[in-house]
Amino acid sequence: MAKAVLTISSKNYGAWALRGWLLTKLAGLEFTEKVISADDPAMKAEMLLLSSSMLVPSLQHNSVKVWDTLAIAEYLNEIKPKAGLLPADVKARAHCRAICGEMHSGFASMRGSLPMNIKAHFPKFKVWSRAQADIDRVVEIWTECLSTYGGPYLFGKTPTVADAMYAPVVTRFQTYDIPLDKACTAYSKRMLELPAMKEWIAAAKAEPDEIDELDAEF
Amino acid sequence: MAKAVLTISSKNYGAWALRGWLLTKLAGLEFTEKVISADDPAMKAEMLLLSSSMLVPSLQHNSVKVWDTLAIAEYLNEIKPKAGLLPADVKARAHCRAICGEMHSGFASMRGSLPMNIKAHFPKFKVWSRAQADIDRVVEIWTECLSTYGGPYLFGKTPTVADAMYAPVVTRFQTYDIPLDKACTAYSKRMLELPAMKEWIAAAKAEPDEIDELDAEF
Repeated sequence: MAKAVLTISSKNYGAWALRGWLLTKLAGLEFTEKVISADDPAMKAEMLLLSSSMLVPSLQHNSVKVWDTLAIAEYLNEIKPKAGLLPADVKARAHCRAICGEMHSGFASMRGSLPMNIKAHFPKFKVWSRAQADIDRVVEIWTECLSTYGGPYLFGKTPTVADAMYAPVVTRFQTYDIPLDKACTAYSKRMLELPAMKEWIAAAKAEPDEIDELDAEF
Repeated sequence: MAKAVLTISSKNYGAWALRGWLLTKLAGLEFTEKVISADDPAMKAEMLLLSSSMLVPSLQHNSVKVWDTLAIAEYLNEIKPKAGLLPADVKARAHCRAICGEMHSGFASMRGSLPMNIKAHFPKFKVWSRAQADIDRVVEIWTECLSTYGGPYLFGKTPTVADAMYAPVVTRFQTYDIPLDKACTAYSKRMLELPAMKEWIAAAKAEPDEIDELDAEF
């Protein structure tokens, strides 16, 4: 059997790692995890946003090596078409890729000031105005998807690439105590109840805090 | 006949606009351009990097509206499979999407300090060290692709999504007088000779400088 290896970083802090891991789970591809250490220069550079490009997560499968989260998503969709990682309808599929692209290249203020940190909880966290604009756009995207496709996931009955791309945002909204309306709260709850999300969150909470040193360097 | 409309911004400054436009040209989809004005709040926000997400370029085709450059690329590849926007080989295709993803989400320093400006030329431009790391990564990517797939384009005999994604970088290297080795110089020359690139560059040079006011606000 072909063996797949997914390289990821911290489960508590690694938002891209979560996306890649969740995509591979949703695709139903069996894989082993390779977690790069906090001492690894590649991880350090990425956590400090110093690297030119994001090379984690990456997936090695047969002779294919693919990095970048969206490229991994498209690859998984090709080899596991029945998993429904992308919506079947051409119009919904274009919509799905568009909002995945937004998350992939945008929302810099939200990322910078509300980094993923699953273990933490900051009640009544004060959100900086540009990050609030990012949050407002996420809410707008979720609201449109949930009302257009009927939920409970962004593109209907089963999770797609879009849910994986926005999954770290679901955890951020919890961590930073971001108030949400009924529809977005229900969506967040549903996402947190996915077995794969539960597994990831449990692992994140059990992760030793070996990368504290990084915080000090910011 | 189905009518496609591509919404773009400045041809001189709009690197994402160039990517989306070149992709649509390479796909062979007939389209009309809708150029949003420099006074348009959406354009202003994007040029000033204030918007959460990049909503330009966007493509309207039949009932499909798709924005985000990579989403447009995947959509065009679906409706025009014979255009070869993605490599036919699964391994090369994963590689192509990976380097497109890198360009889509990375290279922030290069973007910030060497913005696309086709009309301009800055001999012996001094490159800030982080932008140099971005340039080095681009050169590494190009070199690997050209040697692996044999050129003259990044993935072989015909241009793909990757060439469109890196096309604004080709113009930047000219604008900012970035020294390149023989293989990368030949690749850049080849790209600048593409009829579509010639057409875009001529239009950029003819564009009135109505967005000077933006520079003053940086």
